Amino acid sequence: MTASDISASAALDARFKGAKILITGGFGLIGSTLAHRLVGAGAAVRLLDNLDPDSGAHRANLAGIEDKVDAVIADLRDGEAVKGALADRDILFNLAAQTSHLGSMKAPLADLDVNARAQLALLESCRAVNPGLRIVFASTRQIYGRPDYLPVDEKHPLRPPDVNGVDKLAGEAFHLLYHRVYGLKTTALRLTNTYGPRMRIKDAHQTFVGVWLRAVLEDRPFEVWGGEQKRDLTYVEDSAEAFLRAAVTPATEGQALNVGGERPVTLRELADTLIAVHGRGSFVVKEFPPERKRIDIGDYWADDRQFRDATGWVPQVPIDIGLKKALEFFSTRMATYV
Amino acid sequence: MTASDISASAALDARFKGAKILITGGFGLIGSTLAHRLVGAGAAVRLLDNLDPDSGAHRANLAGIEDKVDAVIADLRDGEAVKGALADRDILFNLAAQTSHLGSMKAPLADLDVNARAQLALLESCRAVNPGLRIVFASTRQIYGRPDYLPVDEKHPLRPPDVNGVDKLAGEAFHLLYHRVYGLKTTALRLTNTYGPRMRIKDAHQTFVGVWLRAVLEDRPFEVWGGEQKRDLTYVEDSAEAFLRAAVTPATEGQALNVGGERPVTLRELADTLIAVHGRGSFVVKEFPPERKRIDIGDYWADDRQFRDATGWVPQVPIDIGLKKALEFFSTRMATYV
Repeated sequence: MTASDISASAALDARFKGAKILITGGFGLIGSTLAHRLVGAGAAVRLLDNLDPDSGAHRANLAGIEDKVDAVIADLRDGEAVKGALADRDILFNLAAQTSHLGSMKAPLADLDVNARAQLALLESCRAVNPGLRIVFASTRQIYGRPDYLPVDEKHPLRPPDVNGVDKLAGEAFHLLYHRVYGLKTTALRLTNTYGPRMRIKDAHQTFVGVWLRAVLEDRPFEVWGGEQKRDLTYVEDSAEAFLRAAVTPATEGQALNVGGERPVTLRELADTLIAVHGRGSFVVKEFPPERKRIDIGDYWADDRQFRDATGWVPQVPIDIGLKKALEFFSTRMATYV
Repeated sequence: MTASDISASAALDARFKGAKILITGGFGLIGSTLAHRLVGAGAAVRLLDNLDPDSGAHRANLAGIEDKVDAVIADLRDGEAVKGALADRDILFNLAAQTSHLGSMKAPLADLDVNARAQLALLESCRAVNPGLRIVFASTRQIYGRPDYLPVDEKHPLRPPDVNGVDKLAGEAFHLLYHRVYGLKTTALRLTNTYGPRMRIKDAHQTFVGVWLRAVLEDRPFEVWGGEQKRDLTYVEDSAEAFLRAAVTPATEGQALNVGGERPVTLRELADTLIAVHGRGSFVVKEFPPERKRIDIGDYWADDRQFRDATGWVPQVPIDIGLKKALEFFSTRMATYV
């Protein structure tokens, strides 16, 4: 970071001092990163998370701030718990989700209940008990499906390729609708792959990057499916910064905006970079497994100029540095995370 | 109808002789019209309907064929009933829905449960017990929202203006997804306003046309909200014909296709036509009530050339004839329907 980036970051933090925050999915990758930053900024942070063992949630993600947050262990589908947790808050970072694409095909109704139904119930609760709440919702590039053109901007047709995509699209649509019809102060961020410290590495539930990190740290070769697909990735602290900037930018209310990465890379380039920063390791390129291939979206990278223009957000952490930080984080915590 | 239309219609009917049919929402406007036609064609017709008093369902809609259909009185949310009803069928006309836009804003979770969740459960049941089932799903123009251009074709952005629109969009998306991923034989028809005999006339729950019909038959003036909005309307027998043609046209599988009307008319022109065919009556033009206005979509008419090209469907009943048939139907049945 440059000196001006650091002072911009400090100025942003100052805006959250004393703010009452709720983070759903607060034990997950982005949620916990936001929690650390907001506790550091002097915010009053409450988390709501069900600690689902199949999700990105991990108790260790709050290490160091356990006593500085109010953790509500509840499922987003528990409407009364959600209503109670959000009633006195200023800002909601709404990150709780069922995120597995394959999981959504295996248990489609559960995915619908978390990603669409519980979101609708949450918005109804906001209307009822806290209509002034500022809400930033984690949406996903998944709702675009296989791109017609690249980079993908917000005008791209929405063509969700799996149940998860349909449900997330509905969840996003409810947020935008409740802004338009009831004036709720909602923004949706359409995220791409997010990675970094505190991500799930024990398996591939939270992007392929997690399982790659684990493999190189365990001196095992990892599998790259396909290899030539291009993707953009967001380092988790950049992602947290995007959520904070959205929250303090009223011009983003009622909008769904892409948040991308520094630049697109092929999976092969990403794999090579990981090995280069670790100093050793290897991978094998494999064909896509069939049950994955039929819901895969091919190349994707975001045109996120709308979001950058509205908020001044620019990703700060290039992929080699981000991977290095993730490796450093996990290298001393393997027993906890795998 | 011309002689060639009648013989085309007879040839179509012959394709359903002996076919095992399930119609969800079978007591409703389109569902019951399909039931009458299919019973006449010699199909084995089963209906599933919850007879919700707020819906378009009416027991009298089956008058004359009560003993020739297998009526399952159950809610679409009753997954076991749905699974049992579809297990041995050849074709499913999937029309059950919560259709009220205002209702969806007042009871959003119930709308989601019927229009999205129950649809997903139904598709899961198909996969499990009847993967060869041909499914024609009733979608809606509502998912387009306020049009960017007219007429609206299937490439138009999807921007549902209310909870009902979001939920129907999800329901449609699940149908298309289960075709793409699992090969289920689904088609979605994006319907515009449908009207005719057997529609709900006691209130405005099923389009504004119903309450207009009732008013002129009761010699009361009716209210026209706005008046200059243009809409297309489908006469219910044309709509039933569209469902039958879709079912026998494999080229429509995996697609969502508009079904429109003969031509767009302003609401004022429609009101004038109604009074002209009835021979008397009057209306007053009113401002939109505010809770309606915020979810109203303005002008709409469909470009349905894709559907016409694929199936040969052409609407046969112009608006004056359709309104006249509806007035004739209800004139002797007011005690039953209001």
